[in-house]
Amino acid sequence: MLRARLLRLMRPSLARRLVAEGLGTALLVAAVIGSGIMAERLAGGNVALALLANTIATGATLVALILTFGGVSGAHFNPVVTLVEWLGALPSGSGGFFPLALAVGYVMAQLAGGLLGAMAAHAMFAEPAWLAASTHLRAGGAQWFSEAVATFGLVAVIRGCGHRRPDATPLAVGLYIAGAYWFTASTSFANPAVTLARAFTPTFAGIRPADVAPFVVAQLAGGLMAAALFRWLLADTATASAAAAASGQEPV
Amino acid sequence: MLRARLLRLMRPSLARRLVAEGLGTALLVAAVIGSGIMAERLAGGNVALALLANTIATGATLVALILTFGGVSGAHFNPVVTLVEWLGALPSGSGGFFPLALAVGYVMAQLAGGLLGAMAAHAMFAEPAWLAASTHLRAGGAQWFSEAVATFGLVAVIRGCGHRRPDATPLAVGLYIAGAYWFTASTSFANPAVTLARAFTPTFAGIRPADVAPFVVAQLAGGLMAAALFRWLLADTATASAAAAASGQEPV
Amino acid sequence: MLRARLLRLMRPSLARRLVAEGLGTALLVAAVIGSGIMAERLAGGNVALALLANTIATGATLVALILTFGGVSGAHFNPVVTLVEWLGALPSGSGGFFPLALAVGYVMAQLAGGLLGAMAAHAMFAEPAWLAASTHLRAGGAQWFSEAVATFGLVAVIRGCGHRRPDATPLAVGLYIAGAYWFTASTSFANPAVTLARAFTPTFAGIRPADVAPFVVAQLAGGLMAAALFRWLLADTATASAAAAASGQEPV
Amino acid sequence: MLRARLLRLMRPSLARRLVAEGLGTALLVAAVIGSGIMAERLAGGNVALALLANTIATGATLVALILTFGGVSGAHFNPVVTLVEWLGALPSGSGGFFPLALAVGYVMAQLAGGLLGAMAAHAMFAEPAWLAASTHLRAGGAQWFSEAVATFGLVAVIRGCGHRRPDATPLAVGLYIAGAYWFTASTSFANPAVTLARAFTPTFAGIRPADVAPFVVAQLAGGLMAAALFRWLLADTATASAAAAASGQEPV
Repeated sequence: MLRARLLRLMRPSLARRLVAEGLGTALLVAAVIGSGIMAERLAGGNVALALLANTIATGATLVALILTFGGVSGAHFNPVVTLVEWLGALPSGSGGFFPLALAVGYVMAQLAGGLLGAMAAHAMFAEPAWLAASTHLRAGGAQWFSEAVATFGLVAVIRGCGHRRPDATPLAVGLYIAGAYWFTASTSFANPAVTLARAFTPTFAGIRPADVAPFVVAQLAGGLMAAALFRWLLADTATASAAAAASGQEPV
Repeated sequence: MLRARLLRLMRPSLARRLVAEGLGTALLVAAVIGSGIMAERLAGGNVALALLANTIATGATLVALILTFGGVSGAHFNPVVTLVEWLGALPSGSGGFFPLALAVGYVMAQLAGGLLGAMAAHAMFAEPAWLAASTHLRAGGAQWFSEAVATFGLVAVIRGCGHRRPDATPLAVGLYIAGAYWFTASTSFANPAVTLARAFTPTFAGIRPADVAPFVVAQLAGGLMAAALFRWLLADTATASAAAAASGQEPV
Repeated sequence: MLRARLLRLMRPSLARRLVAEGLGTALLVAAVIGSGIMAERLAGGNVALALLANTIATGATLVALILTFGGVSGAHFNPVVTLVEWLGALPSGSGGFFPLALAVGYVMAQLAGGLLGAMAAHAMFAEPAWLAASTHLRAGGAQWFSEAVATFGLVAVIRGCGHRRPDATPLAVGLYIAGAYWFTASTSFANPAVTLARAFTPTFAGIRPADVAPFVVAQLAGGLMAAALFRWLLADTATASAAAAASGQEPV
Repeated sequence: MLRARLLRLMRPSLARRLVAEGLGTALLVAAVIGSGIMAERLAGGNVALALLANTIATGATLVALILTFGGVSGAHFNPVVTLVEWLGALPSGSGGFFPLALAVGYVMAQLAGGLLGAMAAHAMFAEPAWLAASTHLRAGGAQWFSEAVATFGLVAVIRGCGHRRPDATPLAVGLYIAGAYWFTASTSFANPAVTLARAFTPTFAGIRPADVAPFVVAQLAGGLMAAALFRWLLADTATASAAAAASGQEPV
């Protein structure tokens, strides 16, 4: 198989990419859960203040993590993003090299990393329950529609900003997530790996295990809709790479 | 008509541009109204805290949306900005290609997108009233002067930053709006499409339908003053494109 | 006089530069005072929350204004910065073109713009007293030392960041001021024009007229110390322009 | 010794680098302690609000300081970062020029600068006790694990972002620290020089002198783990400099 051979020859290597995805997702989940614990402990019952701290910590950390791991794995940290990358690299897609084996590896690394991050957050805050299930009910049509919108927007930002301003994508993604924490009723999980990990914390950021599956379905639906829409939307727009190539420059 | 022909040939195509304007404005309005609902629900009556969350969510999302849709439609999301672009492209203007038909299409897409965004926000938060009228009184000379100042500043930022630092315009616009939420008494609507959409929500971000028209007049007045002033202010300054062309570089 | 002739020939023209300095300082002062009024009105007596809103609004607006007016006048908005620029352009200085007449014009525009901005803020918030004197006592050694440190840091940021990363200076200055609002006991006025304007508002951001002069003295002392230190500190480091010129690029 | 000779010839000179490291660390510590004092005084007992202000002030100032002093000394401000740089420059390392004498000088400048910054913060806020010891207990496994994670992440950001996006490293570091203030139970000291300085303030940001040593050990452990991991992770990825050189560009 040509793709399997390319996978063996690729740089950064597969092992490095999987470690980057897993570690990045672990730190992201640790940031989401950890800042939620800290915020809830300090906020004295004021949920708006707790969510504001949770928002700023999550958005800021996310920008830093994408800039840190982007050069190794692309910094997906999110199965929906990996799925969209894989679809875009199919023969009928917009190009690139992203075989199925790589996509499967990314998703497994993200899921494992997410659980590791939840454990790390609990250890840092000396929470008694390690990976105990959350009892935080998050269900209903409004919540699911929120997740679909949140993930639609996330994939839109990655595709749209990544097309012409790839240098700005880390900032755009972090700012978008910070905004979506407030403008969606579900506080914008928008990420199946993070959703699963958050089922295993009985703290501020938790979600009942029973509520995970519909969240993931809504996230996939929203993400795939955005991917389809942006394939059309960007079809006649030159990419930043193409524009730079035409003028003899290589974007760093 | 030459301009009508160019319109047919242009890339990105007209349809793509209108979808980008409509969708971007919808997400912007959803962010403004949705984060207002979330903030009011959680803030326990502390309006400063609610407005701070609303500010951060709006500014952050706005930067992300401009970076996302800027490569397709220019990311106006605002009839005043479209009007100023159209005026700048008139034969007596500072150049560019922006025919009247395109401007009309942009404004219609923005107005429709704004209403769609208000509906989306209500659906995400399961608000009982869909597109019910706001009863939030926002009127009087101080409010109107605030809107004129807010829109003057917005067009100033777009023109001034866009002239020499177009890469930084998305960030500058988002930061400006975040600031103007606090330094104007009207919390800086600065956008007729967003103002109209906010008339249809009985929540934190609403405005009485009767108060929309004077807001829009003030916005147009402020925006046009800034456009006139910056035509003179920038008349003898090379644009970033010209400076880059002179040194053989093409900005991405 | 050669310098007077150059002044007549320069682009952007003197008139444009003075309007940019005056208007930019007016909008900056309107942002400082206006967001202070809004914050105090909404915060229900919680001064930390009011100052946080005031901080975010000021820092965000400042970044946007520097990006907006920087291409025309350099966006000083501050007599200390203009003084430092003028000193740097003296024959013994680090080069550039900044004659005394230009510096005097800048400072006058800044002072006038500051008062205009205070008036605009009062009009936007329908404050009864236009340009009434503040009664907010800000005096004593700790306050003066704070102003010296604040302005030392501001000039350090402008000189240090401007030397190698001029593209990032607008962001660095805004972030620095946001930080200094909290880490100096005086909330970091760091600007004689803004200090004078803030003497004319009986609101959150005010300062007693009697307290202005020592603040300005401390600001000059801090700013000049930083200018002297950075002349030495950067003496053997190539500027970004020089580095770019050596590689055939012209920074935009 | 060749390295000693190079040290004498290097630009910026050793003296300039040490002043930059000392002054930058002083301003950083003044920001951390000063904003903590201001926040505690104003927050009326709401610790979440105080920490949020402390976070925003610290993160914002840190970005500005790295941009300001980066061109002179590299803006380490942190013995762990200097240690990692020195290890990376060993013959077995990833290259660069960073002799032991330089590293020792950096660390001494950072330690001295930190104490100076603590004194400056106390002077600005007229705190009665100059360099009095803190009584703020920060100990136990959860705290130490937090410091290890915090410093692991900090070195990861510096290495990962610095490898391919060195222009974005100042922003990434400031955002990371802002996030880590909330997602680690120790509020992320992540810096032995800052930790030592914070032992000498009986205010919000303090740490008992007895608790400093285990914090420093945890920071060293976390930082060295990240350095080792990223040496492997980035081993087959071209640096930004290499990519730019291949295309004939020199990054500024």
